[in-house]
Formats: sequence, structure tokens, C-alpha cells
Amino acid sequence: MTTYKLLLLPGDGIGPEVMAEVEKVVGWLKRAGLADFETERDLVGGAAIDVHGKPLADETLARADAADAILLGAVGGPKWNGVAYDIRPEAGLLRLRKDLGLFANLRPAICYPALADASALKRELVEGLDIMIVRELTGGVYFGEPKEITTLEDGSKRAVDTQVYTTAEIERIAHVAFDLARKRSGRVASAEKNNVMKTGVLWKDVVTKVHAEHYAEVELEHVLADNCAMQLVRRPKQFDVLVTDNLFGDVLSDVAAMLTGSLGMLPSASLGATDARGTRKALYEPVHGSAPDIAGKGFANPIAMIGSLAMCLRYSFGLGEAADLVEGAITRALAAGARTRDIVGEGQTPISTAEMGDAILREL
Amino acid sequence: MTTYKLLLLPGDGIGPEVMAEVEKVVGWLKRAGLADFETERDLVGGAAIDVHGKPLADETLARADAADAILLGAVGGPKWNGVAYDIRPEAGLLRLRKDLGLFANLRPAICYPALADASALKRELVEGLDIMIVRELTGGVYFGEPKEITTLEDGSKRAVDTQVYTTAEIERIAHVAFDLARKRSGRVASAEKNNVMKTGVLWKDVVTKVHAEHYAEVELEHVLADNCAMQLVRRPKQFDVLVTDNLFGDVLSDVAAMLTGSLGMLPSASLGATDARGTRKALYEPVHGSAPDIAGKGFANPIAMIGSLAMCLRYSFGLGEAADLVEGAITRALAAGARTRDIVGEGQTPISTAEMGDAILREL
Ligand SMILES: CC(C)[C@H](C(=O)O)[C@@H](O)C(=O)O
Ligand SMILES: CC(C)[C@H](C(=O)O)[C@@H](O)C(=O)O
Repeated sequence: MTTYKLLLLPGDGIGPEVMAEVEKVVGWLKRAGLADFETERDLVGGAAIDVHGKPLADETLARADAADAILLGAVGGPKWNGVAYDIRPEAGLLRLRKDLGLFANLRPAICYPALADASALKRELVEGLDIMIVRELTGGVYFGEPKEITTLEDGSKRAVDTQVYTTAEIERIAHVAFDLARKRSGRVASAEKNNVMKTGVLWKDVVTKVHAEHYAEVELEHVLADNCAMQLVRRPKQFDVLVTDNLFGDVLSDVAAMLTGSLGMLPSASLGATDARGTRKALYEPVHGSAPDIAGKGFANPIAMIGSLAMCLRYSFGLGEAADLVEGAITRALAAGARTRDIVGEGQTPISTAEMGDAILREL
Repeated sequence: MTTYKLLLLPGDGIGPEVMAEVEKVVGWLKRAGLADFETERDLVGGAAIDVHGKPLADETLARADAADAILLGAVGGPKWNGVAYDIRPEAGLLRLRKDLGLFANLRPAICYPALADASALKRELVEGLDIMIVRELTGGVYFGEPKEITTLEDGSKRAVDTQVYTTAEIERIAHVAFDLARKRSGRVASAEKNNVMKTGVLWKDVVTKVHAEHYAEVELEHVLADNCAMQLVRRPKQFDVLVTDNLFGDVLSDVAAMLTGSLGMLPSASLGATDARGTRKALYEPVHGSAPDIAGKGFANPIAMIGSLAMCLRYSFGLGEAADLVEGAITRALAAGARTRDIVGEGQTPISTAEMGDAILREL
């Protein structure tokens, strides 16, 4: 059996707590003989700033580069709010994404049957919801230059961010979206603001072209990003695969996430290009942040983190069955009533992070 | 009594239909001796392209500049999808905003009691909702340069948009937000992405400074734009005044709008700076678009347009009582069961655009 090298980057806040639960599942997978892992741990974000003075040490990046996959908890917290822009905790995450070329961010928004009532939306609007947001992750306004603040003659300031997209960047993310759609319902919605942004014009053109040339059997719809945000609230089930740029993806995936009841539920995969040997760099992380307000209290929901491991099994190691097992255990634990605080319903008693991990293990 | 010069720009799609209902209300206000108006009509958007070959003729801009206030319906439609980027229907609207200096876009998101069930959200989350989104409207990625698509050596393309904000631009919109908050609940949330964007860093700094120097009694909270979108769905009533940039404002206001049941309900005001004579340029328009799919069918909801007239009475002419009258008539018409298709509930029969206009008139 192949031994996969897994780098664990727990990060800050609730990151270490939810990572601990993933390690339990990793242990179980090994014992069950379903997969073999060699795990390493390292620092990222504020935890790395405290030790190295920057959020991602070069050794950590090298280790990430050498790993078969990376699991990341979360980064950031008020402790590091004062640090300079370029070495804040988030910069560590952004550098990992950029330097490893993780251009495709997959964010599934699934509404578990047992949680349909935890959504802010009416049950009938979210029951059975299953959207896959495909967010471009290494381009756009996140990395374009110039990105600077200059001081004007009168002492006041001028800040600039630059959104750049090239044909090649849009093509490769479009392929990811259409390929996923083929295995799903066969529908893609592409969101941009071509009525205001030139990057939106190019985005729409390139997606249209990739579709016409390679995926005629997939249904493609173009939607303006503002309207898309609205439609996600109005009638979310109209969407299957939703492809969009880095910034709109950031906002739209948080809206989609909230439809499912709690950010604490949602995993994500950030994938690089497939190389000649058929392997690709990949980082898996929950959509939620480091939630410093509840860190250390045992309140955090480990499901997004454990779901990220399931995505890792599926997308990095081709272990679809093991992934199904883990996801099935999550579904059953929820059906059996296991609830952390973020998803607790009326009359239910919340359990701790570790108890949720155990509840999932019991269902494995 | 002062006679106000009102320029009506019905635009495209359902624009002319909803504008016709506003004209009824304008007529009533005159007859009732509550306000005196001199109204002119002109073309904007696709309607102007058809006649002038561009979406905003110079004469129209001059007329807009001379008017005391502008009421605009909506622009755009598939008929003009093929036209070049710079002369598409939306460009007319953007030019009006920019050339008239309408930097402050006020988008109230109010949930009418009679419509709490029309929201996608659970009733208890939206009942009594009353948010004022203050969107910066003449800066950011909408107007920053460079904004272009270039062809690379290999024939592929590269698109660029530039988001620029200066201290002065952020200061003036912050003042608008804090001034509004003083008359409301005294709370402002400011949304940006300072963890990724330099414009976000400057935005947060300047808002913090304006607050500390002038509005210590107002409560200020900074929120990341992605989290803000999520919070708008999760617990919208936590917000009162929400100030943000042009692009985030575009997306967040559509999310907020949808919480209230229908885009067809929501008015907006776009205001310029107050000059030495105490007057300011102003344009009032519904948040909804031209809805070409239902244009000409009598399905459109005129409430957002009529509500925009109410905002005009309040913000441009200081006629708060007349504005209250119009808004009260909308509330009563809804309470009496008047419903266009977009807000019709189970067991209710929808009425037409004109019938909704008449229902509101009857309540005046
Ligand atoms: C932490 C932050 C830099 C990040 C982003 O904006 O991409 C986060 O919001 C996300 O969505 O993963
Ligand atoms: C029509 C379009 C240019 C406009 C915008 O993006 O500002 C619209 O979406 C709005 O919100 O008024």
C-alpha cells in the first residue's frame, strides 16, 4: 500500500482543536488498513509568526512542496492584528496557495438532511442543496500588481489593488468546473461583472469559448456576480457548479456556506495542476476561520476539518471509497443527533469538539 | 411653493412601466398641493443607444446636471448585449453617477411586515429588518485605471481592472454613513478585505480615524466583506448602517435586498456633495434591473420606483412629511393585500403594475 505524506498545519485559534479530531480519523484509516499515512506537523499563520517572525517559514514551504497533501486548520487572530501587512497570519496562507500553484479552490456547499432546520433559509429552499463552488485561487485582485498605498503631496493617501486575469488562468479554472459538472448534474454557472470589469469581459469570453470547444453537453449559464449572490439566497438549488474569480469566490462561497447552516460544516480543497506523473499539489482546509472567540473552549465543530480529509482522500489519493466512508460517518453522526454549538437545535444538548470527533469515529 | 425640476429617465425593460406609476404619484402630490414639480423626460441606456448611438447623450447629461433631481428606471437588455463595452446601456448609468459626482449610494433594505413571509429567510430573522447600506459609488474598481484588455505575444489576452481609493474618497462616504447612523440606531459596520487588499487597509484606517475624530458616540464595527455577506444571511438584524466600497456594495446590497423578499421593493438614492447653496445632485432609482424577461407584461412591481420618489422627496427636497405619506401608502397597500407577482403569497392573486400603482394612490 502506498504511504502518503501528509503535512498537518493546524495554525491558530480553533485550528489545532479541529486538527486533533482529524488525527483520530487518520489513525482509524491506518488501523483499518484503508490508507497509509506518514504525518508531519508544522506551523503556519500566527503560530509561525510567534516562532519565526513570519507566517510561513521557508522550511515549511519546502515541506509543503514535498508533501503529497496538506491539511490546514485556520490562521489569524487578534494577537497578530498589529503586525505589518505582508507578514500577517493570512499572508502565510496566501503564500502557500500562490507558491504551490493551488489555483482551483473547490468549496462544496451541502445541506445535510439533519441540519436543514439550522439554515437561516426556509427548509424547502435548502433541503437537498448540493452546490460546488469552484473559485480561482491564485489570480485576480489577491495577487495583481501594483498593490500599494502611496502618500500624496498633501499627506493624504492613495491605495491601489489590481485585478489581473489572463486567458490561460481562466481556461484552466473553467476546465476544472466543466470537468466536475460532467460528473455531477451537467450544469455550470459562471459569475463575473462583465458590465463593469474588463476582467469580467475576458472571463465571460474565455469560459464561453472553453465551453463551446470542449463541453457542449454541459449547460452553461452566465450570471452577474451581484445577481448571483442574490440568487444564492433566493433559490439556491438552481445552482450546481458555480465557477468564479478569487474575490467573488471569496464572498459567494461564504454566502453559500451560510445557507447550509454553519461554516463549521464546510470543507474545501485547493488544487494545483496535474503534472506529468499524474500528481498534483493540494491543500485541504475548512472554509471557516480561526474563530479566536471560541478557541480553546471545545466548542468548535470539527466536521469541516474532517470533511476536508475526506476531500483529500478523494481528490489527492483517489480513495473515493474511504472518502465515502468518512462522509457517511459524518452524515450518520448528525442523523444520530450529534451537535456542536454552532448547529445545535432547540431542545438539543451541544457536545464538544472531541465528542463530535468520537461520534464520527463511532460511525466509521 | 418651490417648483422642483425633475428629470425622468425611464430607460429600458420594465423601466418605463414602473416610471408610469411614479408619474401618477407625482401628479397626486401636485394636486394635493404637497409639492410642485416640473417634469422632463429623456432617454438613457439601450433606449438612448437606439436613438443616439450611445447610452447617454451629452444633452441628456446637461439636462441631468440642470435638474433638481433625477428619477431613473433601469437600463440594459439582451438587445444591446452585442454593443461595445464603452457604449453598452450600463455605461450610461455609470457615466451619470461619475460625471454628476454621485458618490453616496443609499440602499435601504426594509422588510415590510406584510411581506416577512416572502423572504427566503425565516420570518423571525427578517421581521422588522431595517438596514441602510451606504455604498461608495464613484470610485473603486468601477472607475480605476488601467482598465483594459491587451493581447499578448502568443495571441492570448490579459485583462486588468484597477481599484483605487484615496483618503478623501473614503472620508466623505464615511461621513455620510456616520451622519445617517446618528439619526438611526447609532451603529455603523464598515466592510472591506483589509487582509487581502491595500484599498481595504486604507478604508479601515480612514473610517477608524473619521469615527474617532467626529463620531465617538456612534458604535463602529469593522467586518470583512466575505464575513459580512455571510452575516447578512445568518443574522441580518445585527446591522444598522453598513458602509462599504463600490464593488462590495454592489454585491452586499443585492444580498440585503433579497432578504426583504423581492428586489422589486427596494429604492435607492445616489447623492453628490452638498454645495455652497446647500443643494446636491441626486439620482433616485430602484435597486432592481430592467428585467427584460417580464418587460411589457404588466408584471413589474412599481414599489421600488415609487419608494425612490419618496427618497427623493426626503433627501433632495426636505419634504419628509410627503415622503412619509408615500411610504405609508406603500405599507398600507401591502397590508391591504396588494401584491404583484414577485411578492405574491400562497392563495393570493397577483395584480398588475398599474393596479399596484392605483392601490398605493388609493392609500394616499
Ligand atoms: C483568510 C483570507 C485571506 C481568505 C481569503 O480571503 O481567501 C479566507 O477568507 C478564505 O476564503 O479562505
Ligand atoms: C447595472 C450595473 C452597472 C450596476 C452596478 O454594478 O453598479 C447595478 O448592478 C447596480 O447595483 O446599480
